[in-house]
Amino acid sequence: MDPYVIRMNGKSTLPSVLDVPVNIGGRSSMPGKVKGRKARWSVKPSEMSNNTFNPIRAIVDSMKVKPNPDKTMISLSIGDPTVFGNLPTDPEVIQAMKDALDSGKYNGYAPSIGYLSSREEIASYYHCPEAPLEAKDVILTSGCSQAIELCLAVLANPGQNILVPRPGFSLYRTLAESMGIEIKLYNLLPEKSWEIDLKQLESLIDEKTACLIVNNPSNPCGSVFSRSHLQKILAVAARQCVPILADEIYGDMVFSDSKFEPLATLSSNVPILSCGGLAKRWLVPGWRLGWILIHDRRDIFGNEIRDGLVKLSQRILGPCTIVQGALKSILRRTPQEFYHNTLSFLKSNADLCYGALAAIPGLRPVRPSGAMYLMVEIEMEHFPEFENDVEFTERLVAEQSVHCLPATCFEYPNFFRVVITVPEVMMLEACSRIQEFCEQHYHCAEGSQEECDK
Amino acid sequence: MDPYVIRMNGKSTLPSVLDVPVNIGGRSSMPGKVKGRKARWSVKPSEMSNNTFNPIRAIVDSMKVKPNPDKTMISLSIGDPTVFGNLPTDPEVIQAMKDALDSGKYNGYAPSIGYLSSREEIASYYHCPEAPLEAKDVILTSGCSQAIELCLAVLANPGQNILVPRPGFSLYRTLAESMGIEIKLYNLLPEKSWEIDLKQLESLIDEKTACLIVNNPSNPCGSVFSRSHLQKILAVAARQCVPILADEIYGDMVFSDSKFEPLATLSSNVPILSCGGLAKRWLVPGWRLGWILIHDRRDIFGNEIRDGLVKLSQRILGPCTIVQGALKSILRRTPQEFYHNTLSFLKSNADLCYGALAAIPGLRPVRPSGAMYLMVEIEMEHFPEFENDVEFTERLVAEQSVHCLPATCFEYPNFFRVVITVPEVMMLEACSRIQEFCEQHYHCAEGSQEECDK
Repeated sequence: MDPYVIRMNGKSTLPSVLDVPVNIGGRSSMPGKVKGRKARWSVKPSEMSNNTFNPIRAIVDSMKVKPNPDKTMISLSIGDPTVFGNLPTDPEVIQAMKDALDSGKYNGYAPSIGYLSSREEIASYYHCPEAPLEAKDVILTSGCSQAIELCLAVLANPGQNILVPRPGFSLYRTLAESMGIEIKLYNLLPEKSWEIDLKQLESLIDEKTACLIVNNPSNPCGSVFSRSHLQKILAVAARQCVPILADEIYGDMVFSDSKFEPLATLSSNVPILSCGGLAKRWLVPGWRLGWILIHDRRDIFGNEIRDGLVKLSQRILGPCTIVQGALKSILRRTPQEFYHNTLSFLKSNADLCYGALAAIPGLRPVRPSGAMYLMVEIEMEHFPEFENDVEFTERLVAEQSVHCLPATCFEYPNFFRVVITVPEVMMLEACSRIQEFCEQHYHCAEGSQEECDK
Repeated sequence: MDPYVIRMNGKSTLPSVLDVPVNIGGRSSMPGKVKGRKARWSVKPSEMSNNTFNPIRAIVDSMKVKPNPDKTMISLSIGDPTVFGNLPTDPEVIQAMKDALDSGKYNGYAPSIGYLSSREEIASYYHCPEAPLEAKDVILTSGCSQAIELCLAVLANPGQNILVPRPGFSLYRTLAESMGIEIKLYNLLPEKSWEIDLKQLESLIDEKTACLIVNNPSNPCGSVFSRSHLQKILAVAARQCVPILADEIYGDMVFSDSKFEPLATLSSNVPILSCGGLAKRWLVPGWRLGWILIHDRRDIFGNEIRDGLVKLSQRILGPCTIVQGALKSILRRTPQEFYHNTLSFLKSNADLCYGALAAIPGLRPVRPSGAMYLMVEIEMEHFPEFENDVEFTERLVAEQSVHCLPATCFEYPNFFRVVITVPEVMMLEACSRIQEFCEQHYHCAEGSQEECDK
């Protein structure tokens, strides 16, 4: 047995009651000498916390560059549509919250999966004949992040794996690895508008695959899958019997020339947990109101998965009740033109940004069809000064005060992501600074003088 | 390798794209035949979800009794002060929320640990010379439940253990066991106003003990520890070098004859994570705004535990920003008389309930000093019809339509818990029905005729 640490007398500033008793010669006369415990402080963070890793934070925090003091900073890096004030939520949404406050009915605990009435509203809003929903199929969560967390927590054990898009939203990795779940990255193909490389996807599946995450519309790509591509994805899931976590937080946020098809409307046999929330479409990401829609017409999830989700929801007891209370009015009263205006703005900014960047030698943007993002390939051979996308974007901040996320954050080097929610003037200014930056650093690749003469 | 399941032709209602390919004779010609995976659906909930167990739900759900149809139901079972409408929050709290909505400043993402300005407010509200706090010592969470979850998640690994009070709030067990952390129950002594049996507590500590949970004021006991008792608890923690999770969600909710001493004000060397929130004192449990206060003047947690908490907070990104935005006004503008009135009401109801139940042969209530609860011992020997507290409370519902939680929910058989937030008339009516119930079922214990003659 280890002797207790001996505290010297006299010099202590602590009251004696806190002193550590002394154990001399191995015989203990004080209470509670315990088996094998060393009486010295050693408090270490858990493995789970050590394994909780946010790649964006790690990469961005290590980018220790200061913006150019002569140019105001333009941040195209944060996927938060509210930061510039140009995209406020609808007044009806605010009014719905005030009404919920005034009613006095939404201050107490809701059931951990949300009020029945709120879940009924979500069910009827997203119900359609091809993918029917009832209140029992809806679980309200503290944002879409918790929705994804609950889905992974119920579907996968430590040691299993999940299939995650590359490029893709970093939270999938963060959550999975914190729970000891392995991630396997399947490829999206920029030359095919970011469709999934289905063969490669299927080749990743093994006996430990617990679920397939499909993010549509996509962060960071801004891509929207066609009906036929979604059917092919479903065919893989059906063939390999892998349930799907559909991250549809950008659902319905597609430009006029595309159509958003909820994945569950295209399959009657693949069990799907669809995650969504108020964050993006209603432009209130801070309010933390998300949901899981359970689509399981063949009863493959069955009661076990449903009960599992309910039990897991009891760990932190769901989202803010005022937002839950406001949900009915938010869904019913938000005018169509609000959604329309948001999308028109995003589409116009996307076109503007795509057009400007496509004209810059050395950059190859991929035209988005929805969500709030656009991915740009950097032809690294033309920028030999920079080792990679992290250095490229770092220097872009230092010289032009324009901040874009290097796509290494999304497991996709040599691209960067542009957030297209900024005001139009800012978008234009940012593009023109990116142009200046590229012109200053563009080098002809060896043996391609021709191209450089353009 | 297992052959694929063969689907029979012709009778399927599914589109062919979803069909399962056929593998005959072990040679696969279709894409994606994978190692070891059986192509049949088998989606099972994770071990974590199987291990997530809410004792209250399990016990209450199995109590399948109907209330007496001739008597209106009186529920004294739910720890939610808002359910009867007699304890609304203060108008200033509602106004603070509306102001936050109108400002338009709180719709976007906050940092995952909360806005700096909101954390500054909490820090200065709870700061005192004996336990100084700055914004960096505050983490905002989705309710006190998430605060407790984060603390356990950062301090303990699967296989370690934590010390939990008996009787105690069931969430500690639910959270710990879902994470594979063992709980060890230390005893509270009803005859000593629910003080901790310190010797027994200390005897439980071993080399795998990751933290000690101290809940003061207590749910379900309504007890409030004295300064000297808290010092003795701290001495055990200091001697054994066990960090403390102080669940102080009922902090400041003590009756006039007691004083609430935040645990951290009494120790400069034991590292303490104090969990609190708006839920109880401001009477808005549904809003899910909680916090962790990090007290670590000896730098025992150090940056590692702080960073661990920050990283874990990034998994679901904190509480609703509107409530965060309202925090400053809530803390500064809520009038003292609001707190005073709440406590007067609770104290008066507690006295009333204690007095009424103490007069009932066969019951032994323990007088509370704070929080919203009162525990009552059932002298089971006088109620031989009932096997235990669950049966007792079950029959109390069936005959008198009064619902109290059997204290088996809190690991403490032969007691029941009374919630004292109900309106006074309801409290009186409930007590009188409990009296009628006890009189009808009271039997003299053998050899104690004397007592029965009273």
